[in-house]
Amino acid sequence: MAKYVYKFSEGNRNMRELLGGKGANLAEMTLAGMPVPQGFTVTTEACTRYYDDKRTIAPEIQEEILANLAWLEEHTGKKFGDPSNPLLVSVRSGARASMPGMMDTILNLGLNDTVVEGFAAFTGNPRFAYDSYRRFIQMFSDVVMELSKKRFEEIIDDVKEKKGVKQDVELDTEDMKDLVARFKAFYKQEKGVDFPQDPKEQLMEAVRAVFRSWDNPRANVYRRMNEIPYSWGTAVNVQSMVFGNSGNTSGTGVAFTRNPATGEKALFGEYLINAQGEDVVAGVRTPSPISALKEEMPAVYDEFVEIANRLEKHYKDMQDMEFTIENGKLYMLQTRNGKRTAAAALKIAVDLVDEGEITEEEAVLRVEPNQLDALLHPTFDPDALAKAAVIGKGLAASPGAAAGRVVFTAEDAKVWAEKGEKVILVRLETSPEDIEGMQVAQGILTVRGGMTSHAAVVARGMGTCCVSGCGEISVDYADKSFTLGGKVYKEGDWISLNGSTGEIFQGAIATVPANPNSGDFGRLMGWADKFRRMRVYTNADNPRDAAQARAFGAQGIGLCRTEHMFFEGDRIKAIREMIVSEDVDSRKKALAKLLPYQQSDFEGIYEAMEGCPVVIRFLDPPLHEFLPTQEDDIVELAGEMNVSVERLKDIIEGLHEFNPMMGHRGCRLSVSYPEIAEMQTTAVIQAALNVQKKHPEWHMIPEIMIPLVGEVKELKYVKDVVVSTADAIIAAAGIEMKYMVGTMIEIPRAALTADEVAREAEFFSFGTNDLTQMTFGFSRDDAGKFLNYYYDTKIYESDPFAHLDQTGVGKLVSMAVELGRKTRPDISLGICGEHGGDPTSVEFCNKVGLDYVSCSPFRVPIARLAAAQASLKQKG
Amino acid sequence: MAKYVYKFSEGNRNMRELLGGKGANLAEMTLAGMPVPQGFTVTTEACTRYYDDKRTIAPEIQEEILANLAWLEEHTGKKFGDPSNPLLVSVRSGARASMPGMMDTILNLGLNDTVVEGFAAFTGNPRFAYDSYRRFIQMFSDVVMELSKKRFEEIIDDVKEKKGVKQDVELDTEDMKDLVARFKAFYKQEKGVDFPQDPKEQLMEAVRAVFRSWDNPRANVYRRMNEIPYSWGTAVNVQSMVFGNSGNTSGTGVAFTRNPATGEKALFGEYLINAQGEDVVAGVRTPSPISALKEEMPAVYDEFVEIANRLEKHYKDMQDMEFTIENGKLYMLQTRNGKRTAAAALKIAVDLVDEGEITEEEAVLRVEPNQLDALLHPTFDPDALAKAAVIGKGLAASPGAAAGRVVFTAEDAKVWAEKGEKVILVRLETSPEDIEGMQVAQGILTVRGGMTSHAAVVARGMGTCCVSGCGEISVDYADKSFTLGGKVYKEGDWISLNGSTGEIFQGAIATVPANPNSGDFGRLMGWADKFRRMRVYTNADNPRDAAQARAFGAQGIGLCRTEHMFFEGDRIKAIREMIVSEDVDSRKKALAKLLPYQQSDFEGIYEAMEGCPVVIRFLDPPLHEFLPTQEDDIVELAGEMNVSVERLKDIIEGLHEFNPMMGHRGCRLSVSYPEIAEMQTTAVIQAALNVQKKHPEWHMIPEIMIPLVGEVKELKYVKDVVVSTADAIIAAAGIEMKYMVGTMIEIPRAALTADEVAREAEFFSFGTNDLTQMTFGFSRDDAGKFLNYYYDTKIYESDPFAHLDQTGVGKLVSMAVELGRKTRPDISLGICGEHGGDPTSVEFCNKVGLDYVSCSPFRVPIARLAAAQASLKQKG
Repeated sequence: MAKYVYKFSEGNRNMRELLGGKGANLAEMTLAGMPVPQGFTVTTEACTRYYDDKRTIAPEIQEEILANLAWLEEHTGKKFGDPSNPLLVSVRSGARASMPGMMDTILNLGLNDTVVEGFAAFTGNPRFAYDSYRRFIQMFSDVVMELSKKRFEEIIDDVKEKKGVKQDVELDTEDMKDLVARFKAFYKQEKGVDFPQDPKEQLMEAVRAVFRSWDNPRANVYRRMNEIPYSWGTAVNVQSMVFGNSGNTSGTGVAFTRNPATGEKALFGEYLINAQGEDVVAGVRTPSPISALKEEMPAVYDEFVEIANRLEKHYKDMQDMEFTIENGKLYMLQTRNGKRTAAAALKIAVDLVDEGEITEEEAVLRVEPNQLDALLHPTFDPDALAKAAVIGKGLAASPGAAAGRVVFTAEDAKVWAEKGEKVILVRLETSPEDIEGMQVAQGILTVRGGMTSHAAVVARGMGTCCVSGCGEISVDYADKSFTLGGKVYKEGDWISLNGSTGEIFQGAIATVPANPNSGDFGRLMGWADKFRRMRVYTNADNPRDAAQARAFGAQGIGLCRTEHMFFEGDRIKAIREMIVSEDVDSRKKALAKLLPYQQSDFEGIYEAMEGCPVVIRFLDPPLHEFLPTQEDDIVELAGEMNVSVERLKDIIEGLHEFNPMMGHRGCRLSVSYPEIAEMQTTAVIQAALNVQKKHPEWHMIPEIMIPLVGEVKELKYVKDVVVSTADAIIAAAGIEMKYMVGTMIEIPRAALTADEVAREAEFFSFGTNDLTQMTFGFSRDDAGKFLNYYYDTKIYESDPFAHLDQTGVGKLVSMAVELGRKTRPDISLGICGEHGGDPTSVEFCNKVGLDYVSCSPFRVPIARLAAAQASLKQKG
Repeated sequence: MAKYVYKFSEGNRNMRELLGGKGANLAEMTLAGMPVPQGFTVTTEACTRYYDDKRTIAPEIQEEILANLAWLEEHTGKKFGDPSNPLLVSVRSGARASMPGMMDTILNLGLNDTVVEGFAAFTGNPRFAYDSYRRFIQMFSDVVMELSKKRFEEIIDDVKEKKGVKQDVELDTEDMKDLVARFKAFYKQEKGVDFPQDPKEQLMEAVRAVFRSWDNPRANVYRRMNEIPYSWGTAVNVQSMVFGNSGNTSGTGVAFTRNPATGEKALFGEYLINAQGEDVVAGVRTPSPISALKEEMPAVYDEFVEIANRLEKHYKDMQDMEFTIENGKLYMLQTRNGKRTAAAALKIAVDLVDEGEITEEEAVLRVEPNQLDALLHPTFDPDALAKAAVIGKGLAASPGAAAGRVVFTAEDAKVWAEKGEKVILVRLETSPEDIEGMQVAQGILTVRGGMTSHAAVVARGMGTCCVSGCGEISVDYADKSFTLGGKVYKEGDWISLNGSTGEIFQGAIATVPANPNSGDFGRLMGWADKFRRMRVYTNADNPRDAAQARAFGAQGIGLCRTEHMFFEGDRIKAIREMIVSEDVDSRKKALAKLLPYQQSDFEGIYEAMEGCPVVIRFLDPPLHEFLPTQEDDIVELAGEMNVSVERLKDIIEGLHEFNPMMGHRGCRLSVSYPEIAEMQTTAVIQAALNVQKKHPEWHMIPEIMIPLVGEVKELKYVKDVVVSTADAIIAAAGIEMKYMVGTMIEIPRAALTADEVAREAEFFSFGTNDLTQMTFGFSRDDAGKFLNYYYDTKIYESDPFAHLDQTGVGKLVSMAVELGRKTRPDISLGICGEHGGDPTSVEFCNKVGLDYVSCSPFRVPIARLAAAQASLKQKG
């Protein structure tokens, strides 16, 4: 028969999956002989069973709980519900991973109208006993029975007001009794029954409430953000109470073995004398620093330091501990690896290596890659921030802090920036035409658009701070002003943005630049680079981003998009002319205008990458993205092309697509108009030749990537155009130069037929953004409208665009890897979708054997660390 | 070393792949000792090699051709280029499958300025010799050198005019010499060199021209229409000439062993005395029926009849033969299985079984399933058709013939139809709102839209004649008239349509109804049903189509769409109200209005299907398809819903999707709005219960199909809604009733995770339309814009929406079949995409082990036959 309940003395730290983190560590401390109030853990499997059984606790599990309760009575020599020597317990949730949002703690469970009297006699402290009882009623009613917390506070306020006092501590025993009576009356009024007097009933309700809280909205949101599967469930810990509030030789506190903000090696924490845990949290009294305990209770302090040191040595990591002192005796209530800032994480990992406690490999595994993000962007100066006024809040679309003067158009952004001014670009929403303005801005603020809006995606790519979707703002473009919170901000006014929180501030807040190459960071990344198998490339399409990525350690460019380049200056006119051309000659004429731009762009990027590999992707997006929509743009274009405005409008209308994502784009453009591929090949090869001449020491091998291939013949057709164009140019230049032609794998059919595609492709780069769209059959632009329903119903637990869907999309990737290598064993394999910068996806890429991941510049350090962790995990 | 040339005496009928059809049959006749002018075949592999070698004939192949030529000289005792005893040859293409569009024939090759004189002396017929020479120059210049045919005709006309004669036969030897001289002069003027005098050069050029013609536009179009792979290549047959034009005991003709129009067992054909093959084609002289040869040359006739009988017995099929008589001696130039009408195909197959020549299995394999289509639709009365005037031509969008009076709106169509009038609905294009009008129309004519436009797809589904995309028409809706060819047609005017050819006729042409259940048809289909393993279902969503499909032999409904029902009458208002509802209550209110409609629709369909299985698919399309776009519709809806017009417009705008195909549709609707699934479940189950009560002898098992599933949890979520709704209704009814819940497999991810999906799905139905779109990553609505480039460049050789892509999409289907059966061995598997009615796709479905195919009613007989052939081929 399955075992659903474990005594603390029956478990150990390795049973985290079954007992939850808290339970496993309580067991481990018990095993190590530390002073832990005894108790037992109801397992995560019992929680899963609870949901399988339509939210009921099976009778056999209830029996097992009661059997363990009987053991606990025996062990403590106390008795549940016995007024003469009552056993009181705490009930706390404890999932595998620490998880705020769930029901946390119920203390003093076991009290009832008779027990409280015995308890008062037993402790010789009636006020304490009745205070404990009213607290219990309050907690139980709130978290178990879901009664309004606020009403209880109102009752307390009422009692205090009548008595004419302000503080809870000023209430005496009779007041507490009064509160108990009023609380119980309120409970009965709301629930229609008396407050439960049977301690066993109280216990079972509490366990049920913990299980239920696993599925509450806050827990669900937290889980989704942190990738915790719904299927895990939570454990429940039932522990005999010790009382930090039983007098002046009692107390409670929390402490870390090292400073969680800086990583400094020194005990860090605080405690309160004569208090229970919730008092520390409530913040009514100011706790003392842990160091003060040395004076106040030297023996207890020494014992605690000794235990803390043992725990850190034991777990080989910084510990976050809860303790209670009851009448001068120390009890450990919890220990766990402590949460810490990114900087602290780095310092602790590096220090532990220097202290000989962990290996370099272990250190690399200790730092959460996503945490590094905080170290890569500017932050606000904390002193300046403290004085700043928040005026609004949007979505935290791209991290970092920025201050600048408000501008409303990309044009104005450029004008102000050229004058040396810092600007914040404020738009209803951004479009590709705003790229240049976005590049010069310190930060971007939009009224519309979510986390995957154009502004958000582009800003993250550039590492620029962005707050999106602040719907409270009303923009008046004509007046060059916006209104927020009733106040008008005009062009030139200073505002500040925190892209990591979504906050918008009035005025300029000083920022502190990131220093990602500081000592600890550098050492840890050095180890990471030593252990990782995969290379880390970047997605960049201009020299600025390329240089930024190099500084962050990128070993090449895995995706250089060529379409963004087309939005700058006069280029957009030429590309529009190309698109609306109705014959080859006029198309070639327009392309000829674009050639010099593309070539010099590529030269700039090659220079910035100093001979590292650069994979250039040919024109990809649906053409309608480039088309003019404004009447005056259309008139201008018609004039330049010498066609009537009506004719041009007809052409534009003819280019309309029902589903542009699945329309005339990617290599389909080069199949229809091979002259596009000719022009782009010319630009790539000519640029590479020029750079090679200037830098004979670099070994230039241009890599050309054909997008949206679904069939080998389609790739071959475009490749033939590339090869004949490239060979002619190279021959004419009289220089030896190799080049490679490969493809994106982003259409399901390409993955399914990868053995055929590999006959022509010298490399594959998995475009997992599009591959995810096609495999799931939903468009990223539209999915926002229904994905929330999917999260609510737990059909999806994470955004498949943020984390690679390993079951479906991953299957296609694995197939393509296997099939591709079968045809061409030395084929180069990488990923260039946004998943390339996501740690769990990077781990998957390592597992299936990709050669590199490519991500936006600001994700490069994250990907380097994630790749190292993946290698180490796979070895381990 | 590869052998690229085979003498006729070295081959046989089984070498069709290498020698082409013509070459293999010439070899077979040679083997059987029949009188065949000898020669040799250059293989299809030589053609493939020609393209591999960048359109050149490799030296070793040229040598092999010349070696065989030397053998032919020896064999015939004649010599190439020898004036005293010249060898002349014909050069003809011959692919594996008979293929019009390629270069056909060059006769008399080997003639030059000196050989012609010797040939004149040798034959004693100088006019014949020079006539042969000028014909050769003409043919060679045209087909080999691609000079303008027209110019040669002009030269002949000029000579005739000068001489004052009208017929070619009135030209004498000197005129022929004159023509030769003028032709040669024209050739030199155009090509800059003399007409080639070296017969070997002539031969090599001719072979090259045949190879080249494999890639000409007409051949490519024909191949695409007939699914002939480009990779096959064509063979070239070089045969010594015999002359049907060498006097009055010579002649040439073609004959079939049975009547290719009716299938009647009697020699059928015609011949011309003193003529070459091209004269028969040219139609200048009227040929005699083959029976006349019995009088004219009894011995030759008897020999021919004997050979014809032997050939038919040998090939066990009706033969199409070419023959030439040279000076009283019969030569066979070709035999092949003859092309025939659908009716003849049926009769011949059935007769051959009755004659004991072939088995029933062989008979079933003899009839091309697609041919049956011609027997399922009305046709024009041939006599009436002969007198009719074609006034325009569009695309042959849906087969059949129809006559009716012109109407311009669906409303008018209904009004006229209710008065008992036959109507042709003429529209710029149709939309879902026109469904009712389309249903009552005899035929549909649209100005815009291709073979996959709404009009075409819906008409084919209904079996209604449709001509689409006739751009010459200009419609004036206001005036209720259209203009075509300068003539105005008003509402009420009669026109006729031929949906099999795209022709539009003035006036009413009498039609002959189809009689698909006539004797031969019935017998053959009976055999087919005996041999097939797969069941054949139909796609139908109204009782009319259901009854039609039953009449055609459908065993159930594999896809009953529920959305079409929503366009009729007031229903569209209710569905619009449902879509724009912003809360559950108003959505439920709108759904409640739809429930009675849906339920009675389902009852009607269940009645029509008489207890056969009916798979009902829940609401699938993007909601925007239902949204009002006209101002007055919006105003009306706003009034009904009691919201402002502005508010409603905002809601409608908010429902806009960038890629509706990949948007909020399918089961995503039921995940967001479970009340839709509740309403539809109620309608299905309630209808089934009512019908079951009325017909206790039927065993009703409703099947509910959830569309667009990509993840098992999504299916489970909707299935849970269905099950709880259905179980409650069934329990309340107090009747025992089983029902099934299954899913479409139309999203790649569903196929990839079919093992998981099968945990919840009791059946899979492959929706290969959407699956093709997602797997290829292109939208059917938009692909038209670039697919032509793909055909031109031979990247695709057939439309993946017409024929299932077995390499890519097929791989997903096979995977899903395997994975689905692994989880649920008894899972029911079918296909309901349009591929379900396509014979090659049906064969694939049989191979991967599907249980049934479902197709539109008019494809049911085709699918039945195709399924039988697939079973037989798989066994064989």
